[in-house]
Amino acid sequence: MTKELINYDNKIMLNCDYCEGAHQNIINALVDTNLQQTLGYGDDYICDLAKKCIKKHLKNDNVDIHFLIVGTSTNQIVISSCLKSYEGVLTVDSGHINIHETGAIEVTGHKVISITNNYKLTADDVEKFCINQQNQDGNEHYVQGKMVFIAFPTEYGLLYSKKELEDIYNICKKYDFYLYLDGARLAFAFNNNDIKFEDLPNLCDIFYIGGTKCGALFGEAVVIVNDKLKEGFRFNIKQRGALLAKGRLLGIQFFELFKDNLYFEIGKNTVFLAMYLKEKLLEKNVKFLTNSFTNQQFIIITNEQYNKINEHFIVNYCGNYNNDIIVRVCTSWATKKKDIDKFIKLF
Amino acid sequence: MTKELINYDNKIMLNCDYCEGAHQNIINALVDTNLQQTLGYGDDYICDLAKKCIKKHLKNDNVDIHFLIVGTSTNQIVISSCLKSYEGVLTVDSGHINIHETGAIEVTGHKVISITNNYKLTADDVEKFCINQQNQDGNEHYVQGKMVFIAFPTEYGLLYSKKELEDIYNICKKYDFYLYLDGARLAFAFNNNDIKFEDLPNLCDIFYIGGTKCGALFGEAVVIVNDKLKEGFRFNIKQRGALLAKGRLLGIQFFELFKDNLYFEIGKNTVFLAMYLKEKLLEKNVKFLTNSFTNQQFIIITNEQYNKINEHFIVNYCGNYNNDIIVRVCTSWATKKKDIDKFIKLF
Amino acid sequence: MTKELINYDNKIMLNCDYCEGAHQNIINALVDTNLQQTLGYGDDYICDLAKKCIKKHLKNDNVDIHFLIVGTSTNQIVISSCLKSYEGVLTVDSGHINIHETGAIEVTGHKVISITNNYKLTADDVEKFCINQQNQDGNEHYVQGKMVFIAFPTEYGLLYSKKELEDIYNICKKYDFYLYLDGARLAFAFNNNDIKFEDLPNLCDIFYIGGTKCGALFGEAVVIVNDKLKEGFRFNIKQRGALLAKGRLLGIQFFELFKDNLYFEIGKNTVFLAMYLKEKLLEKNVKFLTNSFTNQQFIIITNEQYNKINEHFIVNYCGNYNNDIIVRVCTSWATKKKDIDKFIKLF
Amino acid sequence: MTKELINYDNKIMLNCDYCEGAHQNIINALVDTNLQQTLGYGDDYICDLAKKCIKKHLKNDNVDIHFLIVGTSTNQIVISSCLKSYEGVLTVDSGHINIHETGAIEVTGHKVISITNNYKLTADDVEKFCINQQNQDGNEHYVQGKMVFIAFPTEYGLLYSKKELEDIYNICKKYDFYLYLDGARLAFAFNNNDIKFEDLPNLCDIFYIGGTKCGALFGEAVVIVNDKLKEGFRFNIKQRGALLAKGRLLGIQFFELFKDNLYFEIGKNTVFLAMYLKEKLLEKNVKFLTNSFTNQQFIIITNEQYNKINEHFIVNYCGNYNNDIIVRVCTSWATKKKDIDKFIKLF
Repeated sequence: MTKELINYDNKIMLNCDYCEGAHQNIINALVDTNLQQTLGYGDDYICDLAKKCIKKHLKNDNVDIHFLIVGTSTNQIVISSCLKSYEGVLTVDSGHINIHETGAIEVTGHKVISITNNYKLTADDVEKFCINQQNQDGNEHYVQGKMVFIAFPTEYGLLYSKKELEDIYNICKKYDFYLYLDGARLAFAFNNNDIKFEDLPNLCDIFYIGGTKCGALFGEAVVIVNDKLKEGFRFNIKQRGALLAKGRLLGIQFFELFKDNLYFEIGKNTVFLAMYLKEKLLEKNVKFLTNSFTNQQFIIITNEQYNKINEHFIVNYCGNYNNDIIVRVCTSWATKKKDIDKFIKLF
Repeated sequence: MTKELINYDNKIMLNCDYCEGAHQNIINALVDTNLQQTLGYGDDYICDLAKKCIKKHLKNDNVDIHFLIVGTSTNQIVISSCLKSYEGVLTVDSGHINIHETGAIEVTGHKVISITNNYKLTADDVEKFCINQQNQDGNEHYVQGKMVFIAFPTEYGLLYSKKELEDIYNICKKYDFYLYLDGARLAFAFNNNDIKFEDLPNLCDIFYIGGTKCGALFGEAVVIVNDKLKEGFRFNIKQRGALLAKGRLLGIQFFELFKDNLYFEIGKNTVFLAMYLKEKLLEKNVKFLTNSFTNQQFIIITNEQYNKINEHFIVNYCGNYNNDIIVRVCTSWATKKKDIDKFIKLF
Repeated sequence: MTKELINYDNKIMLNCDYCEGAHQNIINALVDTNLQQTLGYGDDYICDLAKKCIKKHLKNDNVDIHFLIVGTSTNQIVISSCLKSYEGVLTVDSGHINIHETGAIEVTGHKVISITNNYKLTADDVEKFCINQQNQDGNEHYVQGKMVFIAFPTEYGLLYSKKELEDIYNICKKYDFYLYLDGARLAFAFNNNDIKFEDLPNLCDIFYIGGTKCGALFGEAVVIVNDKLKEGFRFNIKQRGALLAKGRLLGIQFFELFKDNLYFEIGKNTVFLAMYLKEKLLEKNVKFLTNSFTNQQFIIITNEQYNKINEHFIVNYCGNYNNDIIVRVCTSWATKKKDIDKFIKLF
Repeated sequence: MTKELINYDNKIMLNCDYCEGAHQNIINALVDTNLQQTLGYGDDYICDLAKKCIKKHLKNDNVDIHFLIVGTSTNQIVISSCLKSYEGVLTVDSGHINIHETGAIEVTGHKVISITNNYKLTADDVEKFCINQQNQDGNEHYVQGKMVFIAFPTEYGLLYSKKELEDIYNICKKYDFYLYLDGARLAFAFNNNDIKFEDLPNLCDIFYIGGTKCGALFGEAVVIVNDKLKEGFRFNIKQRGALLAKGRLLGIQFFELFKDNLYFEIGKNTVFLAMYLKEKLLEKNVKFLTNSFTNQQFIIITNEQYNKINEHFIVNYCGNYNNDIIVRVCTSWATKKKDIDKFIKLF
């Protein structure tokens, strides 16, 4: 598999955070353990070790941890395992489960209910829905909202502050809703923010720690905080086709990410480059769709700028903005500063 | 991750064919390509290359190939994408989809219909069902069989001959059924058999080439032969949570397996060791549940033998047989002859 | 069952159009045929007769007709039988399938996609969606719209003109979408409108003729125009629990409604009373939420007016409108003019 | 709708117990109440009355009662509302849910698990399954049995004695399973048996009282005994399309059946005629498939006998028995003794 076979014209990819393989430590661990024999389906000592490491970072020994493979599958399994068939999940319009997962939630029978077209949910948004539902108490003609879905960081790179999440979670508890955090890019949530990793079990009922977009080859770690949601979770994983035979592959990766602080270092370095990009582009008066403090930056550019970029880079087209274009630029654990500098020079 | 942490008491695992990582060639390719940037979701040049290699081996350019991650997920997606909601899939009692997948087919809405408690299907079994269904033509009280599911090799290590598959496929075509081959262990189907890999597109409508149990870290390659089954398959993959972001990982593995003959060499070597084991145990009058010519051997042993084995090996308990015990012993690409010899000596 | 047992304080119900039993002709037919023996599940001569009568009114012999029991069930079966799992159905925000059916569409696995918060769809709304989808051709991350759902009359009493439906249907055909008309209140669609019953097969792919809200005890007649949607429909009915054992009950009712012109007379008389109500209230400067020409009228009233009404009538609270209240007032085949006059006098 | 239009050649139908309309008392009540106004969806005073009458007969005020329309729909809603997605329901091979409902249970995602090909379940059958499942505790590769389904009377007319049901229910409780009785023909279960209607809440977790096959036009009354199964049941009814707008129609019918003893009188009279038929045919050495003490009799006859019968009667062909034929002969509330006598004379 020689480099020559690649047909992307040597363009640099900044379109997403899953263009490369995995952090070198993970690759090394895969190589080192390759011939070890382990039990299948995650019942191996490495998965156990990885779970211990995560629990230590969370300073919480009372959570259940499950390793899954794919983010969409994780959302599908978490949501369908928590809800009864007539219960639905609340989200923002731009919620990943609402528009980017080909109906993966609906195919399990549940309605995704958009309650705002803002890029972030507020406690007020949620309470407004809850009050309305409470007023129709017992009206069996309506899907019953029961869970709030939040991507953290959001799909557009925004962060919730500790206070914001606390407020939302309090509303959830008040109305007997579950709060679920989709942490596909969780590594990038702890810079420029007052939330610490160990706060998460106090801020929601269930969440997942993203691996795929944060340095792993693949993998997401579901953390179940609320005891009511723990029963039978592995059956759901298997039934939805997400139980990896060589489950150790997930264990190995999360062990590497959490045995020390690799996950957070990846987050820090990746966001640093994104902040550097943002700062430099702001100096050049480039406009941003959202004020992102994470590794995803959404810039608004002209068609000419877009064409110019496309000569040397691959970025992610996200739609039009009046006569301009919105593109997503991502940094990852593998992004090189010189490539960001090259990108900045185009403006 | 030191060896000391392993808590299996240094037992040798022969319980399944997914105890280790992957064949060294695959590991090397993962290491070599790790920092290459590629597009996501399988739209990369490596997946393209891998598909070309498979098509070349199949001597067929007209098939669609999709890379999936997990076998259960593959069965779920293939079957649900081929069938209408009121259509069901026929299988043997011991069919993987019938008993080992936690209802992964039913959760998509389809009935799994067992038509025999033998370990293999025959054309007669299928035709008997079809005739019965035809006699009730239009009776909307019955699930309509529409697909025949065959594990090839079977769950109990049996092989279908070319003639047997042809006969079944002819019945399927006669009654407008689809024939689907689950090739989780396909690499082990071509020894002691008259079917060649390139015959498969002529023997069924859709099949999958197993990676997980045949030398890869994970991965299954679906091959769609029947044009009617091709439309929209990627949407089903995504909707069922099985579209890997870093799809290249699947491409890399199948490229290594099929760029030359690695897949078939793994098959040959693995089956060779199983045949050696079988021969030696037969000499010692050990009884076998089925006459398997593949890497899975099902032996019938006493409780005393079982306990003795368990001191040094991990094998797979499969149930009781009168007062005895059925255990599965598997070889894999990584199995060492000296371990098989050690096993044989216990008898 | 004496009148005294009724605990509604002798209030007059104008809250919906299903407060009473059925038109007297239907009751008479049920009594007359009660002891006749017929085959079950709709395979009886009366269902045949009823279908012939409907086809005659439609001047179309090439449609398939199926009798169902409940409107929600009808929407569920029609939509799920027409769509593949990753396909969705477009509607207005206020669409019955979107908000009033407890996720009956989602429970079959399909996303309901709201494309406007107006009370009616336009051809432009639909085309905008279609163009956007076409631009992402092959992007498997999105649910694929494939069907347009229209309630005719709409949930808020509005009618589509012939031109409006033609325009929408043309867009559907242009982009290979299906158009489905929910005719829960179809009897009320032909007054104050230029569409005739016989036009319907030329204006959509599939529709249903509402019985429950138009004079029957219960029952909806699905009319499938598009040949592609005809296969296996009865299997879907049975699988979704909607095949009535004594199917003749549906046949009897639709035979009575369509053997002559009862369905259309009921529509005419019922709408006449609603128009009378509307005219008189408009004279008294009562405001209406929508300009309904059907049996449902949505009036905007003060809290005082609401309380006054509630002393003598039961109406349907539909939400707030600034500081006022929206209530629905319905006429039915059984509504008495004197009760409408009594209602008008309250203003 | 004149009698002449009927195309069944004046044959007498004994093929099923739903050939006619409803018992005259029910017809009268529908006529009498036709113009009364009531609230929709079962929130009316008549449904309340009917529930009170049923509770009185059950001598139990602590059950929840819901009126549904169709038996298949009832099984679908009961089972899917009680089970988690990875849980299955146990039945006999010939179970209605297993073979006669077009996969109505599977379409909700649940596996139907046949545990015997006898016509009745025994406590031993159930315990054997439970023990096996318990031995695999936590094995997420298997659907988890959680409910036992019993048709009472069975699909082949058999009855369970009080002791038999108690034994099964005790096993269910021991292993934390639910016991569900499908009472489609419940009226016929109390003759030639030691179980009384009022015993039922002590013999299962949930059951339904069949109306359709026991004298009503349609309708089934679900009785939920186990508190754990009560929550949200109406949401499931609505979501599965089974909430009748004019719910009073169900109330009226069950009120008539249970205000006095009509339900049990119908049962007694109908079974009496079946026993008379059985006795007379036994005298003529006709063979029976099962020893049925209910309104369904399954007789084994020659082809010649079948042809002779078909000249004057419609009976239900149920399959072959060696060279003979099994046919079902049913009596109903409307069956006339003279027709049974005419039938007997054919032998």
